[in-house]
Amino acid sequence: MIRVGIIGATGYAGAELVRLLLGHPEAEIKWYGSRSYVDQKYASIYQNMFQLVDDKCMDDNMEELSRQVDVIFTATPQGLCASLVNEDILSRVKIVDLSADFRLKDVQVYEKWYKLTHKAPQYLPEAVYGLCEINREQVKKARLVANPGCYTTCSILTCYPLVKEGLIDPDTLIIDAKSGTSGAGRGAKVDNLFCEVNENMKAYGVATHRHTPEIEEQLGYAAGKPLNLSFTPHLVPMNRGILVTAYASLTPGATQEKIRAAYEKYYGKETFIRVLEPGVCPQTKWVEGSNYVDVNFVLDERTNRVILMGALDNLVKGAAGQAVQNMNLLFGLPEDMGLALVPMFP
Amino acid sequence: MIRVGIIGATGYAGAELVRLLLGHPEAEIKWYGSRSYVDQKYASIYQNMFQLVDDKCMDDNMEELSRQVDVIFTATPQGLCASLVNEDILSRVKIVDLSADFRLKDVQVYEKWYKLTHKAPQYLPEAVYGLCEINREQVKKARLVANPGCYTTCSILTCYPLVKEGLIDPDTLIIDAKSGTSGAGRGAKVDNLFCEVNENMKAYGVATHRHTPEIEEQLGYAAGKPLNLSFTPHLVPMNRGILVTAYASLTPGATQEKIRAAYEKYYGKETFIRVLEPGVCPQTKWVEGSNYVDVNFVLDERTNRVILMGALDNLVKGAAGQAVQNMNLLFGLPEDMGLALVPMFP
Amino acid sequence: MIRVGIIGATGYAGAELVRLLLGHPEAEIKWYGSRSYVDQKYASIYQNMFQLVDDKCMDDNMEELSRQVDVIFTATPQGLCASLVNEDILSRVKIVDLSADFRLKDVQVYEKWYKLTHKAPQYLPEAVYGLCEINREQVKKARLVANPGCYTTCSILTCYPLVKEGLIDPDTLIIDAKSGTSGAGRGAKVDNLFCEVNENMKAYGVATHRHTPEIEEQLGYAAGKPLNLSFTPHLVPMNRGILVTAYASLTPGATQEKIRAAYEKYYGKETFIRVLEPGVCPQTKWVEGSNYVDVNFVLDERTNRVILMGALDNLVKGAAGQAVQNMNLLFGLPEDMGLALVPMFP
Amino acid sequence: MIRVGIIGATGYAGAELVRLLLGHPEAEIKWYGSRSYVDQKYASIYQNMFQLVDDKCMDDNMEELSRQVDVIFTATPQGLCASLVNEDILSRVKIVDLSADFRLKDVQVYEKWYKLTHKAPQYLPEAVYGLCEINREQVKKARLVANPGCYTTCSILTCYPLVKEGLIDPDTLIIDAKSGTSGAGRGAKVDNLFCEVNENMKAYGVATHRHTPEIEEQLGYAAGKPLNLSFTPHLVPMNRGILVTAYASLTPGATQEKIRAAYEKYYGKETFIRVLEPGVCPQTKWVEGSNYVDVNFVLDERTNRVILMGALDNLVKGAAGQAVQNMNLLFGLPEDMGLALVPMFP
Repeated sequence: MIRVGIIGATGYAGAELVRLLLGHPEAEIKWYGSRSYVDQKYASIYQNMFQLVDDKCMDDNMEELSRQVDVIFTATPQGLCASLVNEDILSRVKIVDLSADFRLKDVQVYEKWYKLTHKAPQYLPEAVYGLCEINREQVKKARLVANPGCYTTCSILTCYPLVKEGLIDPDTLIIDAKSGTSGAGRGAKVDNLFCEVNENMKAYGVATHRHTPEIEEQLGYAAGKPLNLSFTPHLVPMNRGILVTAYASLTPGATQEKIRAAYEKYYGKETFIRVLEPGVCPQTKWVEGSNYVDVNFVLDERTNRVILMGALDNLVKGAAGQAVQNMNLLFGLPEDMGLALVPMFP
Repeated sequence: MIRVGIIGATGYAGAELVRLLLGHPEAEIKWYGSRSYVDQKYASIYQNMFQLVDDKCMDDNMEELSRQVDVIFTATPQGLCASLVNEDILSRVKIVDLSADFRLKDVQVYEKWYKLTHKAPQYLPEAVYGLCEINREQVKKARLVANPGCYTTCSILTCYPLVKEGLIDPDTLIIDAKSGTSGAGRGAKVDNLFCEVNENMKAYGVATHRHTPEIEEQLGYAAGKPLNLSFTPHLVPMNRGILVTAYASLTPGATQEKIRAAYEKYYGKETFIRVLEPGVCPQTKWVEGSNYVDVNFVLDERTNRVILMGALDNLVKGAAGQAVQNMNLLFGLPEDMGLALVPMFP
Repeated sequence: MIRVGIIGATGYAGAELVRLLLGHPEAEIKWYGSRSYVDQKYASIYQNMFQLVDDKCMDDNMEELSRQVDVIFTATPQGLCASLVNEDILSRVKIVDLSADFRLKDVQVYEKWYKLTHKAPQYLPEAVYGLCEINREQVKKARLVANPGCYTTCSILTCYPLVKEGLIDPDTLIIDAKSGTSGAGRGAKVDNLFCEVNENMKAYGVATHRHTPEIEEQLGYAAGKPLNLSFTPHLVPMNRGILVTAYASLTPGATQEKIRAAYEKYYGKETFIRVLEPGVCPQTKWVEGSNYVDVNFVLDERTNRVILMGALDNLVKGAAGQAVQNMNLLFGLPEDMGLALVPMFP
Repeated sequence: MIRVGIIGATGYAGAELVRLLLGHPEAEIKWYGSRSYVDQKYASIYQNMFQLVDDKCMDDNMEELSRQVDVIFTATPQGLCASLVNEDILSRVKIVDLSADFRLKDVQVYEKWYKLTHKAPQYLPEAVYGLCEINREQVKKARLVANPGCYTTCSILTCYPLVKEGLIDPDTLIIDAKSGTSGAGRGAKVDNLFCEVNENMKAYGVATHRHTPEIEEQLGYAAGKPLNLSFTPHLVPMNRGILVTAYASLTPGATQEKIRAAYEKYYGKETFIRVLEPGVCPQTKWVEGSNYVDVNFVLDERTNRVILMGALDNLVKGAAGQAVQNMNLLFGLPEDMGLALVPMFP
């Protein structure tokens, strides 16, 4: 039985970790960390857990925590994990960090986009970017996994095969992403009130959203060269779900068949990535509550562009589900253990 | 392995049965019945099932079906199950009927409220009303289980202990129920279009809703005498969830402590009924996707009334979850097998 | 031209006042009061007002304000209006208070339910309860109008004719109310975040909601004697709209015809109260954005009860619209001036 | 007083026309056409109109209608207006067609994208494309106005100044549009049921949506040459609102200042187009219920692209509001008469 500690257990991603781990046959949560709710019963914060979780919330003591568990999930704001991690801790436990602290290899890029000083840049080289389908083997050997962002997971997985196979010109890549509101977290802000979000839609963080360099770095590896792309997130009135619509110009020789073959090549054997049948557009509801990413594409001969589409549940494959998938890899368990979640519709 | 057939697999309740049974370790769906979609792939109707279900939809042949499976779920409009069932079929399979055909013992009451002629009244006496927590032992021995209605399950379970213990005057009972829209089914009707339901709320079926006699019959058994009550359903803009708010006058001697003790007496050991802590009002989101019913009450000394509250997911405990719970009872399996679903929040 | 000042212009009710008054041919807003946003452009807080309102927000200086305008609307938390009002101010301006400070005649009832010390009880006798259809003539002569609560307006107007005419037993009255989320205000609270409210439903303030004594006082006047009733509010996932479902036992001799005649007697000539045709249940969407209240009833012979239903837009007839209606009465204008708003559907 | 007839008065666009025209001081609706509901009271179909509209629905008799009114709005499926219009009718009344029949000058393009045979191509040359801000003078003199599509209005107005001034390379233009569900109409289809749309998001009509050639034709006029662009519509769970996010590469010399100046040049004096302040992204809720289009842009130096954003209410500026604006132009009335609608928030 893997003993688990969660720092940041009362955010939405932390709560989703709890939901998933309660159904995981080989994991047991030992520590519900939440600085804001220390000593309060976890189930009083998330009443859906009533009679399922009896524990109280604990303070953020990573030192102590690292002696009690096998793996720590940090579902906390940027900067916290980097400020707490050290060699001593890493010698005792695996860490899956759901924040952005170890996602970008270049500390200057991190500090520029996040406007934070990185407290532990020495671990950037060893941290593994935990996009399981792409970096599976490295994750298995890691001590520190940087769990990808929600927009990032959806964007990269949607575009990866075409970039990797050179079927699109990466410099023409434009990613228009739409997200449910749980991605904005549980902080009490006017902008996230029901009446502000409901029956409303907007772009935000235009040309400045922090997931941009993360997508660029990873797709750059696939392209074999650095790239710049446009990424625009939007807020839509729903709880869960990210939909990515990406546009790129085709390279000479790219065809419907080659594109489908590329998806098949990289995802054909993947449990959690479903390449939909031709003509079927992904819908976020079809993956809700599950660890799936649904992807598909339309080739538009009129414009010589391909339109790529991907959908996932931002709290599952975009956060907690992928974190559990990484945990499974770290501990040599079947990758889908605890993640055989059938999407809920409606 | 229990072989399962579903008639009406493409309605919302049928699709929820599929979701739950895919996660059930001792059940296997052998027949996806759907007259409207015969020969079409089930996953093309419910794309959330893509790569999870490969079968095609089958016609409604209960005769043939009864030879291939151990249990049949009929998730169909009223009248269908009664028109198909016969001794031959019942000798081969168990039937869990999610329609209203066998819920009411009095055929005249059925025909009056449903405006249908009952095609198989001879099975009314043996049919067991499948409210598991109340009729557990009878269900175990049944051939034909009448799976309760969604409003009904929530209403009865919310009120049962107080009626049974004589803590309220049953003639004063008023039940005001609110439901998400999946309860209205997947039929293409203007009234259920997004733009008609969203940002809107209404009562409907006022004083005439068909779940009324079902609630009256069952609570009448608890009271030890027939009773009449007011039941008003409302449609609210959400997918899943029923919330019941019930009002009744206290009988002399009824106290906060006695009411809580009554809930404890009947539900203290129940897995799927959670009596919330004092002061906590049930919320539908806290049970979404799960088989739980959350209940609680407030005693109002000013008016000498008690306000009872209950919440469930209409597609799970209100339909498919309870049906699976009944199946587990019918086949001697642990009652919660395949139903250890953690509510999803948000 | 009536010069208008608003204290609390950046709450939802205040913003709705702005929306309505911008369309009022005889009113001009001179003061956008908002302590939280002093010196910020009003349109930067409510971007829907961009290019419609150029003013900046002002501090809460009622003394100064009273010298610049003809009428002050206080759309502020309880206690503020009572703490600022004085004889000097009342000698210069009319006040329409959207808070509860002057709604209850009995200061002890106010202090018990609101847990506040009333700062200006001396004005309680003269304050007029601004439910226009009931107290029209008194409002015309008032200096200080207590604008009714949103739940209250809907509850009272739905029940008034039957209570007044003795067609129901007032001691059996139970009011089950459901509200959109704008009624909870624009404060940044976790409970009102999109993800907490969306796809969710709950009762709250059960047996303790502050609108209860207000409804009891007003319906008590109609009944000619004090009464106690049950009132339960619910939060539903929509922006605007209150739906009231009320239950009461009929008195001997009460019939379908007499009830309809009672509604006709009191509301037949009212512009803003629409008694729907028999069999039609009110829906909140049918009054959205308008000053209408839609009411109707169903007589249930089985239980000897009547079910009353009412729907309004909580920000219009339940707050700002009624406040403008009161302003029109105070200044001798046509009662519907600026309020000829066609409900928006969908 | 302008006498108005509406064909297709019971669709959402038709109903919005009714809402707007009821508040228009110089218009009077004489004919509520609705083939589906002939002889039924209009207010029984749209209960928000109870006591506001007493008329019954009429059949589609354009011949007769043209003798009774001054202007006919056809808010009908494609093909109907073209099949009914003739010289005789056009000699008597003005026609504002809300369908696509007269939007595209090239009949072959129409027939290809709409898969219909055009029944009245002889009127294509004279029909004026009723995008008021662009074609104001031509509209004033027209007999037949082709009211633009909802996506189209938002897309064109968002991009027009930059295309016209050559600040972007039109061949790089990609338009990602998101729409509320009222744009899908009031037809009873499973895809538009509440439970299918709510908590869901999808692209549809990818690379094949019929508004594409309309946008291309109009922006082609602005560019001075034909152009091909990518247009992808998405369905989001809200009633009203379209948000357009458009991407294009900057031409050499294009700057922040020049782009803003271009918007100012074309829209600075327009009542219904609001160029937001720098850094403010349009939100659909800020224009809901009104005839405004809010636009803005972000210049992204990293990618040498500009991201353009526009928001409108698809039923107002995207349909009925623009139709009334066209009517005002046709009859020499102030362009904003009946359209001084303050956006409703929340």
